[in-house]
Amino acid sequence: MRVLVCNAGSTSLKFKLFNMPEEEVLAEGKVERVGTDTAIFHFSKPDGFRVFQENLHVPTYTEGIQLFLDRILDKENGVLSDLSELTRVGFKTVLSKDHYGIHELTPEVLQGMEDYMVVAPAHNKPYLEAILQFQKLTPDAMLVGAFETAFHQTIPLERRIYGIPWEWYEEYGIQRLGYHGASHSYVAETLTDMYGSTGKAISCHLGGSGSLCAIDDGKSVDTSFGISLQVGVIQSNRCGDIDPFIVPFLQKKGLSLDQVLDGLTKRGGLLGISGVSNDLRDVQEAADAGNERARLAIDVFCNGIVRHIGAYYAELGGLNHLVFTGGIGEHGTRIREAVCHQLKHMGILLDDEKNQSCTGANTVISRTDSPVTIHVIPANEELGVARKTFAYLRA
Amino acid sequence: MRVLVCNAGSTSLKFKLFNMPEEEVLAEGKVERVGTDTAIFHFSKPDGFRVFQENLHVPTYTEGIQLFLDRILDKENGVLSDLSELTRVGFKTVLSKDHYGIHELTPEVLQGMEDYMVVAPAHNKPYLEAILQFQKLTPDAMLVGAFETAFHQTIPLERRIYGIPWEWYEEYGIQRLGYHGASHSYVAETLTDMYGSTGKAISCHLGGSGSLCAIDDGKSVDTSFGISLQVGVIQSNRCGDIDPFIVPFLQKKGLSLDQVLDGLTKRGGLLGISGVSNDLRDVQEAADAGNERARLAIDVFCNGIVRHIGAYYAELGGLNHLVFTGGIGEHGTRIREAVCHQLKHMGILLDDEKNQSCTGANTVISRTDSPVTIHVIPANEELGVARKTFAYLRA
Repeated sequence: MRVLVCNAGSTSLKFKLFNMPEEEVLAEGKVERVGTDTAIFHFSKPDGFRVFQENLHVPTYTEGIQLFLDRILDKENGVLSDLSELTRVGFKTVLSKDHYGIHELTPEVLQGMEDYMVVAPAHNKPYLEAILQFQKLTPDAMLVGAFETAFHQTIPLERRIYGIPWEWYEEYGIQRLGYHGASHSYVAETLTDMYGSTGKAISCHLGGSGSLCAIDDGKSVDTSFGISLQVGVIQSNRCGDIDPFIVPFLQKKGLSLDQVLDGLTKRGGLLGISGVSNDLRDVQEAADAGNERARLAIDVFCNGIVRHIGAYYAELGGLNHLVFTGGIGEHGTRIREAVCHQLKHMGILLDDEKNQSCTGANTVISRTDSPVTIHVIPANEELGVARKTFAYLRA
Repeated sequence: MRVLVCNAGSTSLKFKLFNMPEEEVLAEGKVERVGTDTAIFHFSKPDGFRVFQENLHVPTYTEGIQLFLDRILDKENGVLSDLSELTRVGFKTVLSKDHYGIHELTPEVLQGMEDYMVVAPAHNKPYLEAILQFQKLTPDAMLVGAFETAFHQTIPLERRIYGIPWEWYEEYGIQRLGYHGASHSYVAETLTDMYGSTGKAISCHLGGSGSLCAIDDGKSVDTSFGISLQVGVIQSNRCGDIDPFIVPFLQKKGLSLDQVLDGLTKRGGLLGISGVSNDLRDVQEAADAGNERARLAIDVFCNGIVRHIGAYYAELGGLNHLVFTGGIGEHGTRIREAVCHQLKHMGILLDDEKNQSCTGANTVISRTDSPVTIHVIPANEELGVARKTFAYLRA
């Protein structure tokens, strides 16, 4: 079965076409700067065929999606002879009220995405636009949303419920939902493939956005994202865990709600503390050159990871695997070192040489005598979505 | 030196008169229902002398303070012959912008309390009123504020700074401040008296309000309160850690900011989840009778404690002492049991019999083979304030 996976960002589109259940990648593509006349398009196939185009007129997602579909239908270098061969399209969707699992994208599910627009505006808006276009362009394909919340539905209620008036939970569904489900579940699947079971594991997905997940016997039992994607460890621009009373405090100081939200979501995180950049590599470079705030931003980032690993270690009752994934998880040698070196008393013993030489491929980087096995597992969220889209059974 | 300690609540006043540095209690008093015609006054001395009066006309703090001062000056049963013998009055003050330690209550310090009224309205308002009265009634005494933030000034910056725009830290001082300093520092002093050093310790102050503190070599190195007293573990009515985006979410749903704040500070916590009561004893009774939400509220409460102990265990790099203090910490046998039983893998081995028979006095309740010593240490915040007030040196 041909399953296309679509990952829609605020100004980008990523595609990966799979043959399932073989998990064979047939083609992949990426459109950057959607909404401009300077869009960029990448396309590649495993046989080495490559396309790179720039300065493209891509005013909306429609044109971006069309670029990719044209390529996969191309007579000479395409991979499909007709769009009707596309049986399913899976979306790495984020959030729909009352639909937290894997769902066919019915009007009810799309309405749920509208309902929670305020929680995830940067994510739900582009997905709704992309989904609408696929409804028109591939009317025969089943569209499936593999919501990022799906993996976290097994978190016990006492870790999902906030200490708020009960009616806010009942009426508005306010609870810890968790995201990065495609990534954390892929980590759980990979550990299970390797060991037959995840045992007790902590998955650290660290990238432009970051979250940690406590996994027990393959299931998510806690995670650092909440109802929003802004909390947990600090992220590129996002605030991470803060005292919620900062919001009314600033409003009473005369800032508008939108100014506060802008600060917390776009001018916070690594960028806010360092004042240098939202990219860890730039921040690290500045810290190395003696910039104190850059150093502090990295320390806050690492301390947040340490805090969460400790919290999950306590909740799990032990630990077998600690996994780093995502851009920083895979390539942040010094972050992994700083974190693990603080956690020796928890049986987390890093092999410094293996950590240094790790290229980001699936690698064990702990010492052979480490009670906890430390892994780098490269994220493959698209495969996670393809698996769930393929396995989905219409209710 | 005669040092009077004053603890002002929103409708109550508590007093304790010490002879320092002997730490001898000369008298104590309590006024409940300040602002009514049905106020209650308790007074006692170590010699057994007791006063209990009810239905008193106490419209303001002035009359409440006067009740106590009259008693200590009483010819027959008093302890002072003149108010000028009162050398210092120490207040268990909460928060003053830019004054986080032990300070003489100068106009600048009082202005700082005004500046942060929005963060701690339930605390700063009554203290300002009480301080003003003491300025009039005891003009010769030095008034000292032992701010609840004082003990936490040693928390390293990477655990104090939030991932917010830097100017919010610089301009408004937004950072993790921490409170319950009188209680956590008293725990640290008690451990030091017992063992010569605190080593690595976690202090759990659990009562109507609750916070945890990580202590390393006598110093606070992390705590669960933030800039406000609403966060960390859930409390009687307060929300504890929540996703801050719940605030704008509810505002965009049409709730006013004041409605949101009311829910988070007065209708949240144990009360919000259980729907039964803000008193743990009532909630526990309801849970025992089969009330599911009451059971859930207790589970959320315990899980928050577990999460924080784990986080501090990770940060501290080990653990020597786990201390329970405050009303629930001293008397919540089942809470201590539920928490400790989840943490065996961290070397926290409770002696169930000692835990059961503990009356709230200073007791070790861990097994003799427990790597971590578990303590119940009764809170004595007034003594903590008296010590700091006595030791204060005018700059």
